[in-house]
Amino acid sequence: MMKVFTYPDKKKWNKIIQRPVADNAELGKTVNKILEKVRNKGDKAVLQYTKDFDGVKLKSLSVTPDEITNADKLVSNELKTAIQQAKKNIDTFHVAQKDEVKIIETMPGVVCWRQSIGIEKVGLYIPGGSAPLFSTVLMLAVPAQIAGCKEIILCSPPSKDGTIDPAIIYAAAICGVTKIYKVGGVQAIAAMAYGTETISKVFKIFGPGNQYVTQAKQLVQQQAVAIDMPAGPSEVLVIADETAIPEYVAADLLSQAEHGPDSQVILITTSAAFATATTAAIEKQLQDLPRKGIAKKALENSKLVIVATITEAIELSNLYAPEHLILSCANAIEVSKQVIAAGSVFIGNYSPESVGDYASGTNHTLPTNGYAAMYSGVSLDSFTKKITYQQLTKEGLTMISNTVMEMAEAEGLTAHKNAVAIRLK
Amino acid sequence: MMKVFTYPDKKKWNKIIQRPVADNAELGKTVNKILEKVRNKGDKAVLQYTKDFDGVKLKSLSVTPDEITNADKLVSNELKTAIQQAKKNIDTFHVAQKDEVKIIETMPGVVCWRQSIGIEKVGLYIPGGSAPLFSTVLMLAVPAQIAGCKEIILCSPPSKDGTIDPAIIYAAAICGVTKIYKVGGVQAIAAMAYGTETISKVFKIFGPGNQYVTQAKQLVQQQAVAIDMPAGPSEVLVIADETAIPEYVAADLLSQAEHGPDSQVILITTSAAFATATTAAIEKQLQDLPRKGIAKKALENSKLVIVATITEAIELSNLYAPEHLILSCANAIEVSKQVIAAGSVFIGNYSPESVGDYASGTNHTLPTNGYAAMYSGVSLDSFTKKITYQQLTKEGLTMISNTVMEMAEAEGLTAHKNAVAIRLK
Repeated sequence: MMKVFTYPDKKKWNKIIQRPVADNAELGKTVNKILEKVRNKGDKAVLQYTKDFDGVKLKSLSVTPDEITNADKLVSNELKTAIQQAKKNIDTFHVAQKDEVKIIETMPGVVCWRQSIGIEKVGLYIPGGSAPLFSTVLMLAVPAQIAGCKEIILCSPPSKDGTIDPAIIYAAAICGVTKIYKVGGVQAIAAMAYGTETISKVFKIFGPGNQYVTQAKQLVQQQAVAIDMPAGPSEVLVIADETAIPEYVAADLLSQAEHGPDSQVILITTSAAFATATTAAIEKQLQDLPRKGIAKKALENSKLVIVATITEAIELSNLYAPEHLILSCANAIEVSKQVIAAGSVFIGNYSPESVGDYASGTNHTLPTNGYAAMYSGVSLDSFTKKITYQQLTKEGLTMISNTVMEMAEAEGLTAHKNAVAIRLK
Repeated sequence: MMKVFTYPDKKKWNKIIQRPVADNAELGKTVNKILEKVRNKGDKAVLQYTKDFDGVKLKSLSVTPDEITNADKLVSNELKTAIQQAKKNIDTFHVAQKDEVKIIETMPGVVCWRQSIGIEKVGLYIPGGSAPLFSTVLMLAVPAQIAGCKEIILCSPPSKDGTIDPAIIYAAAICGVTKIYKVGGVQAIAAMAYGTETISKVFKIFGPGNQYVTQAKQLVQQQAVAIDMPAGPSEVLVIADETAIPEYVAADLLSQAEHGPDSQVILITTSAAFATATTAAIEKQLQDLPRKGIAKKALENSKLVIVATITEAIELSNLYAPEHLILSCANAIEVSKQVIAAGSVFIGNYSPESVGDYASGTNHTLPTNGYAAMYSGVSLDSFTKKITYQQLTKEGLTMISNTVMEMAEAEGLTAHKNAVAIRLK
């Protein structure tokens, strides 16, 4: 079960918040080999790796219109309704992120502005495996569509029978994904980064994945392709005081623990009694979980920290910079104002992480591994670039000319100075 | 002089816009060695490399308060006035980028919002060499201060006499830089990424540099430090028709060419007569440039393309995705609306690139090497991360519960479902 730290000395904090460090040296070689092969051999290599790694010999990488129609039939109406409601909320929250163009006159006759423009071609990666993450399709495709990306392609590994989960196809179809391909792992990242006969090269790649996929994204990032962010195992940190409800917090910790054996789960509380009650509740709830085995493993390297005050709890949390932060304490809203590093914050007893994972409207693609200290989660911004513009009148140029010429002179850049001077002649 | 392409076939476009590709394999080894040395030996290694590469044996890496006071005396009042005016305009444009918090109720009782929070510790790199880039200090430190970054450190290589250009120190001092260090090159990036006894580790590193610095930034980016963006040689692309003035455009092309021998300079025009006149004007203006030699070299691998229509010109420019785009043509504003990939756009005959380089208010740290297709230039956003928040009432959770539970069920994540169910009991 969870490692317990009671009123640990601040000197010990850095040790407590340490995350497991994966050695990627060996992994890098394997990943590089696959990247190069796909870069040089295109579809042929992708099909071969799909046979080797996914165990299926595909004729075509593309999901056909028939498969899309068919997926629509296979998804239950209940699930469709749920997906549509989630889509609606995600859409509402991300549309509100559009920023209108502000025209700024920095000096008389000197007018500057910024314009957001959708990245023309983006690629979304959706992992396969134990859970079909159609929710991630919504989290990536909805903002991509709002941003006005012209090409939104999606890659997801096929199962042994050569199909992709119908819920993934359904979600992609209603979110304006332009093309769906049956490709997973490193070969999918390579195909989107370099392009193949079938799959077109994109400018930016989004989406979660195992350590091979993550490594592949980091490597192609060195080769003129952008990525959403570096990714690590999913995390939750809960800050709770005596007003929190042990059963609720236990359920939240378990919902993170069931993600994978490497999930990071941390509870910081000011109440020893609450800690004991929550540990008991975890034990109890764990029994009935289908993914019990996974959750148990995750809990083994999870931590329970008892601190003196909520202020200390926040301090420790800011140091850890969790992907998800749940505030189950009195005046949670006030406490939330002291958060300076977290991906997404869940406030109060009725805001479990799972609402953010699926449907509240916030994005669930968030910085892990401490990156919340410097990275934001995926948002509308992630799918756009902001171009700046300036237009000067002759009067404006005259007004600013001394400033520019003086600085150009001092930096020893005479031609920069001339470009202004010649226009004032 | 410039390579000329007259009405080239579209099939040839990709060849025309090709940028020189630097092979970084060898370079990577050298850079890695320096990174490792600094990581393990700290200040000792930094001081040694400063002796080896900058040719000066320093006692201390820190710029002292006395040096700051002294720099203030050494900078002329004219330059101070210019720097202050530029700072004011950059401040005005970047303050306007602050986004107020929008509280969004995606469903009754389901409230979500985003909050920008300054990255706590940032590091700015300012190259030394032929031109003291105090303008870049303004472009990075001003938004960092607006963002509310708590620690803003700056590294710049010392000259042989162990000093840093007073204008750089002056600009840093008036922009709230908290600490200035006499460190350059890879050792500076390493010091800011890993921290040393003197220099504290930062979360994100900004600023231009040679290919060694750029490579170092890309490598530390793999190690839990963020960077502003990948960087390449500076570029300008000018689109001009017969309404443009050859002398102005010639001056703009030369102001880019004087940056360095590897600067990229492209002119696309619909008028053969204009092309001829501009080439002549370049020849003429080139003669009196102190940096004539550099500019000449840059012009040798620059390009002049004659096309049939402005629409074609824009198409070609969007394919190239230039760092700087100057529109010297009729209805430049209308034409600017067709731009989908560029760092910063300069509109009309009185908006030379140099105003944006120094003082219009837009940021001059911009995506090069085609990255304008997916990256934005540096802005206030670059110094913040955006945290999302959600707060649900019990009614809100009830309202959204079916959606979340249905989706969690379908993704096989029972604990996610339980986290909602248990709260409704």
